[in-house]
Amino acid sequence: ITTKYTFPMVLGHEAAGIVESVGPGVTEFKPGDKVIPVFLPQCRECRFCKSPKTNLCERSAGKRFSRLTCRGKKLLQFANTSTFSEYTVVNQIAVAKIDPEAPLDKVCLIGCGVCSGYGAALNNARVEPGSSCAVFGLGAVGLAAVMGCKAAGAKTIIAVDTNPDKFHKARVLGATDFVNPNDHDKPISQVLSDMTNGGVDYSIECVGNVEVMRSALESCVKGWGVSVIVGYTDMHDFAARPIQLLSGRTWKGSNSCVFCCSGFKSKDGVPEMVKAYMAKKLNLEEFITHKMTLNQVNDAIELMEQGIGIRTVLSVSPQQ
Amino acid sequence: ITTKYTFPMVLGHEAAGIVESVGPGVTEFKPGDKVIPVFLPQCRECRFCKSPKTNLCERSAGKRFSRLTCRGKKLLQFANTSTFSEYTVVNQIAVAKIDPEAPLDKVCLIGCGVCSGYGAALNNARVEPGSSCAVFGLGAVGLAAVMGCKAAGAKTIIAVDTNPDKFHKARVLGATDFVNPNDHDKPISQVLSDMTNGGVDYSIECVGNVEVMRSALESCVKGWGVSVIVGYTDMHDFAARPIQLLSGRTWKGSNSCVFCCSGFKSKDGVPEMVKAYMAKKLNLEEFITHKMTLNQVNDAIELMEQGIGIRTVLSVSPQQ
Repeated sequence: ITTKYTFPMVLGHEAAGIVESVGPGVTEFKPGDKVIPVFLPQCRECRFCKSPKTNLCERSAGKRFSRLTCRGKKLLQFANTSTFSEYTVVNQIAVAKIDPEAPLDKVCLIGCGVCSGYGAALNNARVEPGSSCAVFGLGAVGLAAVMGCKAAGAKTIIAVDTNPDKFHKARVLGATDFVNPNDHDKPISQVLSDMTNGGVDYSIECVGNVEVMRSALESCVKGWGVSVIVGYTDMHDFAARPIQLLSGRTWKGSNSCVFCCSGFKSKDGVPEMVKAYMAKKLNLEEFITHKMTLNQVNDAIELMEQGIGIRTVLSVSPQQ
Repeated sequence: ITTKYTFPMVLGHEAAGIVESVGPGVTEFKPGDKVIPVFLPQCRECRFCKSPKTNLCERSAGKRFSRLTCRGKKLLQFANTSTFSEYTVVNQIAVAKIDPEAPLDKVCLIGCGVCSGYGAALNNARVEPGSSCAVFGLGAVGLAAVMGCKAAGAKTIIAVDTNPDKFHKARVLGATDFVNPNDHDKPISQVLSDMTNGGVDYSIECVGNVEVMRSALESCVKGWGVSVIVGYTDMHDFAARPIQLLSGRTWKGSNSCVFCCSGFKSKDGVPEMVKAYMAKKLNLEEFITHKMTLNQVNDAIELMEQGIGIRTVLSVSPQQ
């Protein structure tokens, strides 16, 4: 969260819910529809929505739609969604309709992190069968990237984290090798290069640290290595020596992971991911380590900051 | 030229010539063949040569083959070629056979710079018809990139240079617009963004300056913009804010422009470029502004450093 976010604001964005009512002009939804609010809208009309090359939407930038108030005072909306709330008000361009059978307390994860990591492997890196991959950072996004590499048919998936407690879940989701940078004296890019005859075909940075972004690029094989940045930070420059790119590597960002659902058009992609979960092609259970209620939200954030568990699912209404 | 190059060395690499004799084991060439020596070898056997994704060759790195001597003292070879010399000795993996009708004093340009720029547009950026492009730096490489953008069908080709003397040739080769950063108070990325409704689809950096690399990336449109680094430098880091990639831009290097012929496999690509020239699909004449003899080589380098002209073709043998 950067300083451009001001308060009072209702936070929260990775969620699933049921439409309670619709306002005038809403044509796509009716009360009772199961939905996932999406960080990144899809208006289907702007030049970005009309291009197959991106999932950006022109209506996402700097247009903060908010209908939320508290005792008459206007509240700001977070990420087009504001889901730390029993009820929220969302523009229809930022809502995806999903399978009515989908369990909300599982598919809520599809609202951001899982799509970001999974999509980075499949849609941004475009991991090829038989390839070698490295995933830096094993939070929900990194674990989803591991799952995406596996789904794409990667042969070698090296999971990199300084917290070895994360390796078990990474293995369950498809990682074949594990590297804790603290176990090595040499640069991590050298460790990975030694393991893979010159570097991995794809690396995916899921930390949000500019030094890790550099290591991830340098861990790729020259000639064709592709490194994708998914971790969000915008406090410092990322950097490398020009020869890293001049020798054939490519540096990409996960198309708007910062807005969720990298590489997926949001309203198109989210229902597809829900379908994949319902067809048991996507493992969400492995990500859910804790369940709490909304009044415990600060405890949930504390767990995340301490690196305990992966995702805490909050129930926002006691009666649910 | 970085400090890793030591002397005594025979410099020179962008050349064309005739095979005078062949050594034992040479199977691809015979005396009289017209050839272009290539900076970047193509052994056809290594994992890079066998991949369609790169033009690197495993046999190019750190294996300095040299058979050159001067009064019994061994001389180092430059860039697998050493062409500032009437005769040179080159490994057959670093020589491309070309059309026997090709004029050597023109097609010599295909040995490096023209392929680097032209290939960066076609093979690395993969410029699409109807798109907008910006080329930073209008030396031979940049002008060739302009020609490549034009060949790819770009609609808008913005030529950027602080030396407006270069704009005439850029126009001849296909540029549609011209920007001299010295004419503007705002950042050049802002100037280009204003000209193109948010940034160009493709930018190509042909200067070799890390600040220009940053500007070139920032000049691309979010969502799908691709910036290709062709200019060689390895003294400083290039850098940008992560949001530049996270919002959908891609940063690539011209696959081994540093070794020539970006994106082209060298022994395969060079003869094709010669064919294109012979079919009048490639303009080389526009690049040749001066002709001199080898003993004037220092004057030729002086012209280049002063930004006068584009290419000086040196005749290495008085009788030629």
